[in-house]
Amino acid sequence: MNNKRLNYTAENCSIAATLELVGEKWSLLVLREAFFGLRRYEEFLQLTGCARNILSKRLTKLVEHGLLDRVAYREDGQRERYEYHLTEKGLELFPAMVALMQWGDRWLAGESGGAAVVYHKNCGGFVQVSLSCATGHAKLNIEDTQVAPGKGAKLVSKSAQN
Amino acid sequence: MNNKRLNYTAENCSIAATLELVGEKWSLLVLREAFFGLRRYEEFLQLTGCARNILSKRLTKLVEHGLLDRVAYREDGQRERYEYHLTEKGLELFPAMVALMQWGDRWLAGESGGAAVVYHKNCGGFVQVSLSCATGHAKLNIEDTQVAPGKGAKLVSKSAQN
Repeated sequence: MNNKRLNYTAENCSIAATLELVGEKWSLLVLREAFFGLRRYEEFLQLTGCARNILSKRLTKLVEHGLLDRVAYREDGQRERYEYHLTEKGLELFPAMVALMQWGDRWLAGESGGAAVVYHKNCGGFVQVSLSCATGHAKLNIEDTQVAPGKGAKLVSKSAQN
Repeated sequence: MNNKRLNYTAENCSIAATLELVGEKWSLLVLREAFFGLRRYEEFLQLTGCARNILSKRLTKLVEHGLLDRVAYREDGQRERYEYHLTEKGLELFPAMVALMQWGDRWLAGESGGAAVVYHKNCGGFVQVSLSCATGHAKLNIEDTQVAPGKGAKLVSKSAQN
């Protein structure tokens, strides 16, 4: 594996690209609260502890990149305001969020346990992230898997190799 | 959900804690290469494009936090050097890495596709991350799930609420 890996560039890595977009602390905390069901600026402000100007910037960025939709609402006697709703693109980050939470609960939270749990609505069962394959094999371990160059893999150019 | 959520503090969030440890770009790229099977300083250097002093710091941090083991090796006629092997704690980040990659492949990689794919060794099936519950229900969607306060959830203090 090692030798082969060294033939490829790591430039167009989807993990790095994802973290570039949502790995920044405040963006992530906003998304976390969106998954908790929060939608309004003042709610995000309270739960993230983010400064107002930074929160505004992060919400704008997440809207620009299509993870949140900005939806107008108006309460009686108030001016029009906006709610932030997770889009399909945003919602699809849920397994990644659960995977990060699961790891933190197990390795970092200590005896007090995690601050949140995810349940299956129908049966109340504790929800976890796991790996399965397209053929239907479930609960795969890392040893059951192999990483290989994908369609977008790029070879290192000869000049860069020297 | 909204009102209830506002009763809890977000201080001890396992997602934030995890990202605090591995969300930093270079730490993450080192871990990515470790999952690709790389173990040696010069290999990490080539594939991450990290500066030497930063790479050394990140490897040290990941060893200190128990995600990598530092293992001595010696090649003929050379001085003793070290390899970095993923520990159980490090290996368990794999589902989170695959989840981030999967999202990036789908939403950011564009038509060229992702740079890497994960296969099931036994059957060659494409490996994906999905949510299942302890009772055995598989391939859950976010709508099938509910987030609730966990064992470590902390109520916001009265004074902080006012």
